[in-house]
Amino acid sequence: MTEGFSPADTAYGFPLIIKQLLNRPKAVSLDQKIYYADKREFSYREFFARINRLANVLTSLGLQKGDTVAVMDWDSHRYLEAYFAIPMLGMILQTVNIRLSDDKILYTINHAKPKALLLNGEFLPMIGNRAHDTPSIEHVIWLDDHGTPAPEFTVGEYENLLDKASDAFDFPDFDENTIATIFYTSGTTGNPKGVFFSHRQIVLHAMGVIAGAALNPDQVGLRYSDVYMPITPMFHVNGWGIPYVATMIGLKQIYPGRYIPSLLVDLVAKHKVSFTHCVPTILQMMLKEGQARDFDFGGLKMIIGGSRLTEGLAKAALASGIEVFTAYGMSETCPVITVATFDTKEPLTVENSLAIRTSTGTPVPLVDLQIWADTGAAQPQDGESVGEVVVRTPWLTQSYFKNHDAGNELWTGGYLHTQDIAHMNAKGMIKVTDRLKDAIKSGGEWVSSLEIETILSLHPSVADIAVIGVPDDKWGERPLALVVKKPNFDDVSPDDVLALAEQAFERGIIPKYGIPSLLRFVEQIPKTSVGKHDKKVIRQLVADGQL
Amino acid sequence: MTEGFSPADTAYGFPLIIKQLLNRPKAVSLDQKIYYADKREFSYREFFARINRLANVLTSLGLQKGDTVAVMDWDSHRYLEAYFAIPMLGMILQTVNIRLSDDKILYTINHAKPKALLLNGEFLPMIGNRAHDTPSIEHVIWLDDHGTPAPEFTVGEYENLLDKASDAFDFPDFDENTIATIFYTSGTTGNPKGVFFSHRQIVLHAMGVIAGAALNPDQVGLRYSDVYMPITPMFHVNGWGIPYVATMIGLKQIYPGRYIPSLLVDLVAKHKVSFTHCVPTILQMMLKEGQARDFDFGGLKMIIGGSRLTEGLAKAALASGIEVFTAYGMSETCPVITVATFDTKEPLTVENSLAIRTSTGTPVPLVDLQIWADTGAAQPQDGESVGEVVVRTPWLTQSYFKNHDAGNELWTGGYLHTQDIAHMNAKGMIKVTDRLKDAIKSGGEWVSSLEIETILSLHPSVADIAVIGVPDDKWGERPLALVVKKPNFDDVSPDDVLALAEQAFERGIIPKYGIPSLLRFVEQIPKTSVGKHDKKVIRQLVADGQL
Repeated sequence: MTEGFSPADTAYGFPLIIKQLLNRPKAVSLDQKIYYADKREFSYREFFARINRLANVLTSLGLQKGDTVAVMDWDSHRYLEAYFAIPMLGMILQTVNIRLSDDKILYTINHAKPKALLLNGEFLPMIGNRAHDTPSIEHVIWLDDHGTPAPEFTVGEYENLLDKASDAFDFPDFDENTIATIFYTSGTTGNPKGVFFSHRQIVLHAMGVIAGAALNPDQVGLRYSDVYMPITPMFHVNGWGIPYVATMIGLKQIYPGRYIPSLLVDLVAKHKVSFTHCVPTILQMMLKEGQARDFDFGGLKMIIGGSRLTEGLAKAALASGIEVFTAYGMSETCPVITVATFDTKEPLTVENSLAIRTSTGTPVPLVDLQIWADTGAAQPQDGESVGEVVVRTPWLTQSYFKNHDAGNELWTGGYLHTQDIAHMNAKGMIKVTDRLKDAIKSGGEWVSSLEIETILSLHPSVADIAVIGVPDDKWGERPLALVVKKPNFDDVSPDDVLALAEQAFERGIIPKYGIPSLLRFVEQIPKTSVGKHDKKVIRQLVADGQL
Repeated sequence: MTEGFSPADTAYGFPLIIKQLLNRPKAVSLDQKIYYADKREFSYREFFARINRLANVLTSLGLQKGDTVAVMDWDSHRYLEAYFAIPMLGMILQTVNIRLSDDKILYTINHAKPKALLLNGEFLPMIGNRAHDTPSIEHVIWLDDHGTPAPEFTVGEYENLLDKASDAFDFPDFDENTIATIFYTSGTTGNPKGVFFSHRQIVLHAMGVIAGAALNPDQVGLRYSDVYMPITPMFHVNGWGIPYVATMIGLKQIYPGRYIPSLLVDLVAKHKVSFTHCVPTILQMMLKEGQARDFDFGGLKMIIGGSRLTEGLAKAALASGIEVFTAYGMSETCPVITVATFDTKEPLTVENSLAIRTSTGTPVPLVDLQIWADTGAAQPQDGESVGEVVVRTPWLTQSYFKNHDAGNELWTGGYLHTQDIAHMNAKGMIKVTDRLKDAIKSGGEWVSSLEIETILSLHPSVADIAVIGVPDDKWGERPLALVVKKPNFDDVSPDDVLALAEQAFERGIIPKYGIPSLLRFVEQIPKTSVGKHDKKVIRQLVADGQL
């Protein structure tokens, strides 16, 4: 009999709580393995026991349902255990965004007010004068990979505490709308904003991701036979929710710790990792490491999100044996709302699949996704008419934490507004063309900065590119291209690169006003903490004459 | 903007109601097709409009939220439209089990008390003197494929009514726990019992089926590229819920009408049907038709449920190009709770996959399935220790309709009791060995009638077989085998067939007491309305010396 067993002869209502994600692996994966980098391994049997141990540790500290427990760690077995034990106790898991500046990290902690913190010692410097700067934290549990003794102010080291705790715990049932996790977006304007998800939302998102990812053909689809490793930080919207997915299926899992390219490729090789997900920057890092050692990724399936997968990068990945494709969403959407879908039985080649791989995909089952014109009317599905992507799904943040004005703006008209500009065709294939605030309006017409970036990125000299709108007396705005050149392309001139935009215009791919008025070579392009181009900063630097 | 749009700037809570299943197809499948046998075809665009038209027809009759509307039809586009329009109005869809005896059909109608009936004229004789025998029915809508005019007592013919109705309708949101469907099981004892499912349960079941079926490899897995045709009657637990699944993905769909073998094979050939599901009896019918015309089913993926898929039948199906595998459940479970799972990247061959294809599968994600000994303790997962399958999933009938005593018995101890006997191995692979009431206890030990049936069915002369327990003074019970021989095997004796059981014993596959004491050739074996062996009737006939 399981936890929560009731002797009453009445139907079980089955709340959609995170505990239920363990039902299937408890049957199918008792002897399946979970690895932490090159350091440790556990069977699921042990994993279940360790979740119980962690629950006993947390409750022994006096922590209760409704309390918030924060985690600062690299991607580890500990983080996975926290994903389950903390919310299964009815507590709220705060996954601290360690890519923020120290000031903003402190802001997020003081805004969410966790009572306990699971702290990897490597991040100790980030949280300042702990007692003074994070007054809500009563207990710190020390996470350590280097044999550094747990400092005085902590309650002890994680593994030691687990060793001493009982491996039995009965997790209660409770309302599925209980908040399970909270995470702060990096937001380029103002303070980070907290998104939060209930148990129900996390369970339904996991089911949605399976539907979106598994209906694809073997070459790119999620399978019972997969070996899973995340390369999206576990703090980032629950690692895109995929650790929950992998666990509920019962897959072999690898948690890689800090992202060190050589170790990542080693782990892929050693464990035959077959399913992962990351942002383009990480993919580039993986490709570089793979090329340096002439490594074939052997059909590794990889979801790309966070920012655009360019055709150039997709081709490079495919050439290295990585089956890349796009999924789309944002922190506010838990995050997955679309996945690239392949409705073919033919083997996927570069020729027949590149456009789909690099598209934004189609809505996952249950997702109500629409493209709205300024008027709030749905645009025709003609693959051309652009508008803002708005959505309803069962897994969207219902507001921003303690910031309901921003939450109401997010939900204008009862749909969540993504601030992404896209079009959709008659088969539901979506293409995000721009961020609403990054879109360029020239002569009254929209120019897709992403489209221009895509075209110019095909030039062999281009390592990185950003296109922004700059004020123009005649046209309102005109596109400006900023390009980081690869080494050994000194001879290439701005006009050489812009020639690709001219060709695209001549072939009818872009309008004439889409050709940038100017292309400037720069040393680097400012990025946000999660590796996206920070167009707000770029625009400011350009305006100030500093870029 | 969609139905239910609210101008308020607040988060949308997203009730899990059947309406939401249409979100994805409304984006991706506007031009995709739905076919009714060789008679009609519609685009999804038309399908959505027809759902609206049907809603207008039903509300124009004064029907309201909470009213029950019954359907008696073959598998048709009309039935699919009723699957959506009726529950989306907050009404309850009763899918009348037309395989029951006329008396029992009337019993189910008078128990559920529908206010309206969508009646295929072919079933008119079944419902007797309508006004007298089904007093709850105020409105009959006439379904017709033969040009038979709608009788006086009806409100008109379905297509005519739809033609006259508006194609616009705003479906409201409501509580996801609203009952959506009701269906009566054939139950071999007493009166049929009603199982009922809420909107939430039907939506979650659909997500569960996708997870269970799509994580399998291409050879057997559900895909975006599939063409779907049910060959499980749509009245039977919502056609196993798969029409909802196919629609929510947005697949091309074929509804075959009455099951005529030649038409079924024609439709598979014409539309390149790639995904279906049925009971073994229908599979046999399909194979016979296919063999008669030397037809290759071309990799048609087929879920078998309802009763056991024998190795012999599985081999025959594979030889004809049908990729068969088992899913498991019952009317009370909506029905799917397990699916055969293949965690391999190797191509599936008869040798490496037959055992998995014919197993009962592993629990679908979220499903808590356990094997309980008589004591209520979970049995070890050793692939041997048998006990009753008990389950908790988000999609189980919460009782029997207006029969809560039986409902409480179903839910003894807070788990739904399947009355199936099974064992489970360390990888969660389940094998149902018997129905609780059909299990044979010889000399204090359980004998699996299904296992003995499987072994004896391997003899080339065996067309059908049932093994039951008969009282025995010495052993308590002893197995008796009843066999229907194929034509042209007149020379085969009972001992020839029993020799297979002897061999199985000698190889250690079954215990000595598993060898039937007697094998008798019979003309036919009694079956229930859904084509399963009716062991209760068989036992009675044997006891009475009539079989």
